[in-house]
Amino acid sequence: MTSSRPATADWTLHPHRALPAEPGLRDIAVRIYEQTASLPLVCMHGHVEASVFADDEPFADPAQLLIVPDHYVTRMMASQGIPLESLGVPRRDGGPVETDSRKIFRTFCENWHLYRGTPSRYWLEHELVEVFGVTERPSAESADRLYDRISECVADPSFRPRALLDRFNIEIISTTDPASSDLSVHGRIAEDGLGERVVPTFRPDGVLQLERPTWREEIATLAEVSGIDTSSYAGYLDALRERRAAFVAAGARATDHGHLYADTHPMDPADAASLYSRVLGGETPTAAEARAFSAHMLLEMAGMSCEDGLVMQIHPGVLRDHSTQVFERHGQDKGYDIPIGAEYARAVRPMLERHGLDPRFRVILFTIDETVYSRELAPLAGAYPSVRLGAPWWFLDSPDGMRRFRELVTETAGFANMSGFVDDTRAYASIPARHDLARRVDAGYLARLVAEHRLEEDEAIETAVDLAYRLPRLSYPKPVPA
Amino acid sequence: MTSSRPATADWTLHPHRALPAEPGLRDIAVRIYEQTASLPLVCMHGHVEASVFADDEPFADPAQLLIVPDHYVTRMMASQGIPLESLGVPRRDGGPVETDSRKIFRTFCENWHLYRGTPSRYWLEHELVEVFGVTERPSAESADRLYDRISECVADPSFRPRALLDRFNIEIISTTDPASSDLSVHGRIAEDGLGERVVPTFRPDGVLQLERPTWREEIATLAEVSGIDTSSYAGYLDALRERRAAFVAAGARATDHGHLYADTHPMDPADAASLYSRVLGGETPTAAEARAFSAHMLLEMAGMSCEDGLVMQIHPGVLRDHSTQVFERHGQDKGYDIPIGAEYARAVRPMLERHGLDPRFRVILFTIDETVYSRELAPLAGAYPSVRLGAPWWFLDSPDGMRRFRELVTETAGFANMSGFVDDTRAYASIPARHDLARRVDAGYLARLVAEHRLEEDEAIETAVDLAYRLPRLSYPKPVPA
Amino acid sequence: MTSSRPATADWTLHPHRALPAEPGLRDIAVRIYEQTASLPLVCMHGHVEASVFADDEPFADPAQLLIVPDHYVTRMMASQGIPLESLGVPRRDGGPVETDSRKIFRTFCENWHLYRGTPSRYWLEHELVEVFGVTERPSAESADRLYDRISECVADPSFRPRALLDRFNIEIISTTDPASSDLSVHGRIAEDGLGERVVPTFRPDGVLQLERPTWREEIATLAEVSGIDTSSYAGYLDALRERRAAFVAAGARATDHGHLYADTHPMDPADAASLYSRVLGGETPTAAEARAFSAHMLLEMAGMSCEDGLVMQIHPGVLRDHSTQVFERHGQDKGYDIPIGAEYARAVRPMLERHGLDPRFRVILFTIDETVYSRELAPLAGAYPSVRLGAPWWFLDSPDGMRRFRELVTETAGFANMSGFVDDTRAYASIPARHDLARRVDAGYLARLVAEHRLEEDEAIETAVDLAYRLPRLSYPKPVPA
Repeated sequence: MTSSRPATADWTLHPHRALPAEPGLRDIAVRIYEQTASLPLVCMHGHVEASVFADDEPFADPAQLLIVPDHYVTRMMASQGIPLESLGVPRRDGGPVETDSRKIFRTFCENWHLYRGTPSRYWLEHELVEVFGVTERPSAESADRLYDRISECVADPSFRPRALLDRFNIEIISTTDPASSDLSVHGRIAEDGLGERVVPTFRPDGVLQLERPTWREEIATLAEVSGIDTSSYAGYLDALRERRAAFVAAGARATDHGHLYADTHPMDPADAASLYSRVLGGETPTAAEARAFSAHMLLEMAGMSCEDGLVMQIHPGVLRDHSTQVFERHGQDKGYDIPIGAEYARAVRPMLERHGLDPRFRVILFTIDETVYSRELAPLAGAYPSVRLGAPWWFLDSPDGMRRFRELVTETAGFANMSGFVDDTRAYASIPARHDLARRVDAGYLARLVAEHRLEEDEAIETAVDLAYRLPRLSYPKPVPA
Repeated sequence: MTSSRPATADWTLHPHRALPAEPGLRDIAVRIYEQTASLPLVCMHGHVEASVFADDEPFADPAQLLIVPDHYVTRMMASQGIPLESLGVPRRDGGPVETDSRKIFRTFCENWHLYRGTPSRYWLEHELVEVFGVTERPSAESADRLYDRISECVADPSFRPRALLDRFNIEIISTTDPASSDLSVHGRIAEDGLGERVVPTFRPDGVLQLERPTWREEIATLAEVSGIDTSSYAGYLDALRERRAAFVAAGARATDHGHLYADTHPMDPADAASLYSRVLGGETPTAAEARAFSAHMLLEMAGMSCEDGLVMQIHPGVLRDHSTQVFERHGQDKGYDIPIGAEYARAVRPMLERHGLDPRFRVILFTIDETVYSRELAPLAGAYPSVRLGAPWWFLDSPDGMRRFRELVTETAGFANMSGFVDDTRAYASIPARHDLARRVDAGYLARLVAEHRLEEDEAIETAVDLAYRLPRLSYPKPVPA
Repeated sequence: MTSSRPATADWTLHPHRALPAEPGLRDIAVRIYEQTASLPLVCMHGHVEASVFADDEPFADPAQLLIVPDHYVTRMMASQGIPLESLGVPRRDGGPVETDSRKIFRTFCENWHLYRGTPSRYWLEHELVEVFGVTERPSAESADRLYDRISECVADPSFRPRALLDRFNIEIISTTDPASSDLSVHGRIAEDGLGERVVPTFRPDGVLQLERPTWREEIATLAEVSGIDTSSYAGYLDALRERRAAFVAAGARATDHGHLYADTHPMDPADAASLYSRVLGGETPTAAEARAFSAHMLLEMAGMSCEDGLVMQIHPGVLRDHSTQVFERHGQDKGYDIPIGAEYARAVRPMLERHGLDPRFRVILFTIDETVYSRELAPLAGAYPSVRLGAPWWFLDSPDGMRRFRELVTETAGFANMSGFVDDTRAYASIPARHDLARRVDAGYLARLVAEHRLEEDEAIETAVDLAYRLPRLSYPKPVPA
């Protein structure tokens, strides 16, 4: 038995990683990948906070940068019995959690084996080696040296958030902002000349989902920020229109909707207005009412998109905060969100019946349930001119997940009905790794089509550039209000 | 970067296209494919109109042959914002559509890139090169030359429908005909000596689905054609039996059923009779009533199949005419049919409880929802002697779709419980391409089993011939009425 | 055309069977497989009867060993119209079935082609060649010689069940025993010094599922065996606790639950108690009541697992005895069990809310519906410390099925959250074949990760040993009652 590279040797990344292993395929894939590897990054949907760019503060330390805020990383250790507290994940009650970042980082390095076969492992390798110049595999033994190395980088001005925009070759990046945001943070970014490069996305979940405990509070903030009285349903719609216009003015290209269901069935407007008033007045909506209202409002959002040109993104199908105990102790987005079966054919029909053939309308459908790729999403995207199919999302944004996506959707929907790559992350330092991985996986898929004589190589290269760069630009155009 | 073949060079098809790329696998696959490549085509289910064979008229022109009637081709352009009108797709209201076939063909050639990675691309390449002798890749620049070349072919008597039966090596082909058909067109075909080669299929959807606006009209035609009074439920069943017998006499091998659900739960016969009378009398059935009646009648059809020996085909799970606007403007079958989640284990149980072990019964189950391949369909086909699993259907009749089918069903159901290849197309000129592609994909799948030492090569070759030729013949035998 | 090995030649198994065909991948896979090929077998879940080990009788003959009791084998012939009676499958009414084992074996050999591409074929080949030293492919012509060869083996003392434990290198094997078992058979095994090597599993389905016709009878036996009055719900729970303790004392590591749904929603305890009493008193429960009670009791079992340390296994989603006719004629487990769509995210939530973060709790989730692998099961296993994902089960325990499992779950759940291999068979002689196949498939999957530079080879080897040996040992530890 020979191991290809002993753990003690210099740790480098193979230039052909994540490309097909078969030599003939790999040769073609390398030629395709070479044409996309250095294209600028178009990051049209993600969760890096706008304040990161506005403040341009250095990152605190390696653990706070790479471990603590990344629920992909912390949940994997939690799944093996390592408490989130010991990984420094803050408690909502302010209770004690580990604050020694070096110790947190060491725990991570000791558990490096847990990430085998996962995309986190792939991204982290890329970050450690390519971004921070690490030359050793993480382990209990190497942990402190890695920590020191990354700490040095983080302290360097060239690793500040704005500098990283250039280092990472990011052409444009979009944040995600609640409907009730006053966009002042984006205002500061624009004042510094980055307004075209860092843009907001309008995310109104908080004001569309009646059942949330914070809903009334959000409606009050919406009124305040918009300057429009939201005490009636009509005022509420006006306030939403006002905020959407403000977002467009601030450079937004899109809206984003994280509903449990993709449902877009309308309510009678009078019923919607009455329900709105009752809940605003203190009544607790039934689950069916809340679901009906959010479906109704998704359809309303589609109508407003026809008017103001914001591209609509729908991210449904996740049962959030599956563990109440984890939610109560640590809050949202801690890795305990579990997908459920999704349905689109009937759910989005009211929206597509009303706006699906409207040339002003653009909707990008995402899913975390692979069963709808070939069954519902590809047929919809391959027929309606308004529909684009979003890139593989969340758990599916992985080497095999992305390959399956291509294999399951391309034959029905073609390439031109795709959104192109979307990184969708809150882990800023992982963005180049994610784009790079997607470009490699696409090169591998296209190489197979070439090797099987289903596509010519010149077509494959043009398509690879489309998927990496042109399609995300085309899928999220600047709004042209009607 | 080197492209394997520049766009300007002679356009030819690689002899090893759609076979595995890995050299060792490909060698085996080539040997397997060579044993099936020239076998006759057995086309036991499809949608070429009987009149095509009865009239034997030349095809109008390249656009009317290849573009306008093929909803796979037109929907892909529509999905990119090209109106169906500009592609010559007729409007139901007789409104203006593009009539310049050369212009339509040019639009298609300009959009050749949209078909990358789709089976349409693969089939069209095969048709253009192998059937029509085209030697240039479609493009804006080459469009007129291609149009002229195909026009020449179409004008030649050797390209008339009957001549193509020989050119395409079609041993037998089945049309699809409504229950109320008088079969006179098939009579003309039989008079010309082609009665054994072109056979009808009994498709009673129009008279089984109460909710259709045309149902009463269809029932009236059924009475007229059968000469049996359909004013009662008993008469209706008799008329159905009479038509089935007429189809058997005209050479039919099978029935076909395009229901939304595979449901076969029976109604109480008295309730079915009463519902039949009420709806015939003008009452509008509820959705639940219509669904119950169609399930009940599917079970009735299974019973009649035991009596008259017609093989039953079930094609469920498609939400037809998802876009009402497209339907109202252009009618059915325009690419706006969207699959929904399917269920078979419970749905077909009443039918299999009643007839599943009856040696006279044969049912072929198709699906457009891949999730049931390994979960429900393979276990059913691998247990009940009456059940065969239909070939990958519609969107799934593609290189990767067919590969996934084999990988998902074979391990549980084996090969002998498959229907063998079914082309199921209305695009006559694409039939050889479809059979050829299936033979290549099967050769690739079988080659992998051989290369992984899971099958001997002699067994693989025998199996390839089964899938391409013997199984479709065995799966659709001549009815032997009881 | 050359066949790699003519049917008449000596029949041997290729040393690289079921490893990847591509030479580069295969080289790596061989190196990985060599490190696991001779590891001891850990068989923590299966259906070999305890009496086989207690009695240590020789097997009757080749047909009774390999054909008659294996429903994978008999159902495939039944699916092609060969009656179960002619294969010697006993009738419940004692009616006549084939008793000539040589004739049954001949029918099997004549139908050897039906198993092409199935795992049964792969396992049978391994058994015939590796266990029984057969050197000819099964066929009508070779059937009798094979029968004689296997008969000789079976007659030899070195092929008795206990001797096979050593020949097969089985370190530990678990039987499956009803909750009402008095464990006397295991007592006899323990007396002979095999108590640590052959252990029971607690399977209480018969006493948790109110709707079973035998439920009252089982409850009576439970009372008798436990010595606890089960006339009240409280007594019933106590009796269950007593039996679990007895199983623990007899060496059990786990419980097993074969419910239709994975549902764990609790009932109000008073309602559960009342329902229990009513059904015990002769009332027939509604389907909803029976379902609610079994869900409630699954949650109760989880609570008891926290107390006594038995690992919980859940095997849901199979519609048993789909053909009433087959069930009435031949009884359960005859190949007519059909999977249905599964749901876990909501179903197991009550259990995970209550016990999911409890370090004393361990649950292993199995599925026969592949759609939940990436959607629900991997996210659950990748978050909750108590959850492990069971190995591919039943129809999915096949070369391509196991490969898909790895590809669909690893990227989200990693390797450490897997149960490791579980053979789950009643076909004793197939156990080595099943473990060997799993080790080969895992080697192939890991080799791809290495070849794509997603994993180092030393990590792949460590992981392969984990999956084959360490994880099953770790996943089913000796109970440490609280």
